[in-house]
Amino acid sequence: MENNNRRQFIKTVGMGAAAIGAGLASSAVPAMAKDEKTYNWKMVTTWPPHSPMLGEGADKLAEWIEQMSGGRIKIQVYGAGELVPPLGVFDAVSQGTVEMGHGASYYWAGKSPAAQFFAAVPFGFNAQSLNAWLYAGGGMELWEEAYAKFNLKPFIAGNTGTQMGGWFNKEINSMADFNGLKMRIPGLGGKVLAKAGGNSVLVAGGEIYTNLERGVIDATEWVGPFHDMMLGLHKAAKYYYYPGWHELGTGLEAMVNLNVWNTLPADLKAIVEAATYKSNMWMLSGFEAKNNAALRELIDKHKIQLKQFPEPVLKGLKKLSTEVLEEIAASDPMSRKVYDSFLAFQKNIYEWNKISEEPYQKLKYL
Amino acid sequence: MENNNRRQFIKTVGMGAAAIGAGLASSAVPAMAKDEKTYNWKMVTTWPPHSPMLGEGADKLAEWIEQMSGGRIKIQVYGAGELVPPLGVFDAVSQGTVEMGHGASYYWAGKSPAAQFFAAVPFGFNAQSLNAWLYAGGGMELWEEAYAKFNLKPFIAGNTGTQMGGWFNKEINSMADFNGLKMRIPGLGGKVLAKAGGNSVLVAGGEIYTNLERGVIDATEWVGPFHDMMLGLHKAAKYYYYPGWHELGTGLEAMVNLNVWNTLPADLKAIVEAATYKSNMWMLSGFEAKNNAALRELIDKHKIQLKQFPEPVLKGLKKLSTEVLEEIAASDPMSRKVYDSFLAFQKNIYEWNKISEEPYQKLKYL
Repeated sequence: MENNNRRQFIKTVGMGAAAIGAGLASSAVPAMAKDEKTYNWKMVTTWPPHSPMLGEGADKLAEWIEQMSGGRIKIQVYGAGELVPPLGVFDAVSQGTVEMGHGASYYWAGKSPAAQFFAAVPFGFNAQSLNAWLYAGGGMELWEEAYAKFNLKPFIAGNTGTQMGGWFNKEINSMADFNGLKMRIPGLGGKVLAKAGGNSVLVAGGEIYTNLERGVIDATEWVGPFHDMMLGLHKAAKYYYYPGWHELGTGLEAMVNLNVWNTLPADLKAIVEAATYKSNMWMLSGFEAKNNAALRELIDKHKIQLKQFPEPVLKGLKKLSTEVLEEIAASDPMSRKVYDSFLAFQKNIYEWNKISEEPYQKLKYL
Repeated sequence: MENNNRRQFIKTVGMGAAAIGAGLASSAVPAMAKDEKTYNWKMVTTWPPHSPMLGEGADKLAEWIEQMSGGRIKIQVYGAGELVPPLGVFDAVSQGTVEMGHGASYYWAGKSPAAQFFAAVPFGFNAQSLNAWLYAGGGMELWEEAYAKFNLKPFIAGNTGTQMGGWFNKEINSMADFNGLKMRIPGLGGKVLAKAGGNSVLVAGGEIYTNLERGVIDATEWVGPFHDMMLGLHKAAKYYYYPGWHELGTGLEAMVNLNVWNTLPADLKAIVEAATYKSNMWMLSGFEAKNNAALRELIDKHKIQLKQFPEPVLKGLKKLSTEVLEEIAASDPMSRKVYDSFLAFQKNIYEWNKISEEPYQKLKYL
């Protein structure tokens, strides 16, 4: 077969090109059965450009996709506000202004209430259980269904691990201590605080420290020790509470415009998807490895007081959380469907956790 | 630039090809800056061919690599014994008889004692902490160092999650109950049992049920509810113990012959690596999602008795485990180095777990 005909032949049989070479040892058989297009994408994000772990996660995701595709997909990453405002990411990708986005799905509650269930749910999943639900428990399929009508293909692309409960200047001894409390706690956690009589105040990341220091807000949550220390929150509050009942393993998302996705050849689809798996694992592992050193520094050097929410407070918050979630489910059929799947998987994983991860956590005290 | 020259030019600048197209919108810019070889690999595994989760994980890993590479790497997967015996995998890949292998690193204790630390250590890491140590705590670099002298490039490519403690026909109420006990428990767990006065018996997977049923062995461990039920172990023993102190989150490995690895172009290296991340996450999520349904069936339908090892027994086993691990570290400098890194990371993650994953596990009871 002469060269041109051979190439045409391989193009025609598509993935069969590999099979042609299968009888040979590693050798110089050309693998031409490829879409030869180069895709130049923009990825807009909800994170400050190159910010540790989060913006960095978006950067690395783009880098890995470019690397794996041998440069066939090249992605320019934009930090929040560089191309679109942070909360404009969803629309920009949905409308095809850009090809890709990176953020957290709870930012899109106003567009799709069901989206919140894929990021963080008060008294919901930790990272391992969220991944199990999404990858092996039907969660991902529901996320795809919820996003399809916005012309979006979603991926889970990171996880912060279990977050902290937040920074306070007074102790939280009972549910009554939330009464009148002005706290920066967005999303579902904020709705729960409001039910408890507090005020959920919207404050952008860069202004939290100043607002807390000046008493504009009484309390705030952010992420965990590694990120919170960088923001200097320990200089404006003395009590650092755990656990982060409202974000027990927050999943981050990547999304691709569905028209763009549908035109990708199979190998590039597989590459983008695998890169999100890597990103998910990379980020969670990084958070897990970094948080304790920051926590030690906060305690030993900055003398913050680490405190656990008392059990009656957690009970109270859980009761209100269930009310918030049921209200969302009652107001939106897709949310109902997602929440039902969530609850069924939670029952399942709780039973298994009782004899697996829960006894594991006790072994350290032997 | 005419066509041949252009191709040559792009070959010369390598990855720069993407930059050439960067100013254009998605378009038909040829992405030629690629190694055009097709690689035909063999992957030998320690698992029965296509066995659920484990063999299946090897199959999927091969499939994803082929898919992402557009057929440039094609991998033929061989189950245990199809090409080499299960315990011949390490040597076959090391010597370059085949390009790739899939198994668990504790099988290679006889070749490299340090290898055991990357699979499962009694009273060691769960899956999340193992991943954090490997991906973000220096573990992977040590694994690479340990395997380099065998001409191998290792990857973590799966995890079983927390396993069970095993099947017994008598209750384990004190350390004395291990005295004289003939149990199928390989590896480090087996060494601990021997220190407790028991006999660690080697039995291949396919013969465990018969040996237990006939009393050739008194007890056995295998994996977890999903796998154990398939083996029918509930028909030969009545007590099912937890936690699996000896395998709290067993990591599975993939490995590539280092000469083969070093000849791979950068894009294919990135593809193989990302596929192992995906495989790691896929397998853990699958185990997490499947175990509880099997556990329920074992309890509700097959009436097995679920039992927890008493705390004094776990204390006793932990003490003996530390002795076993210290002996290995004392006998081999690489093991010392790996064990020191392991211990430092464990101290770190235990502190963080106390205020993150541990309180998370208690929330289910609120």
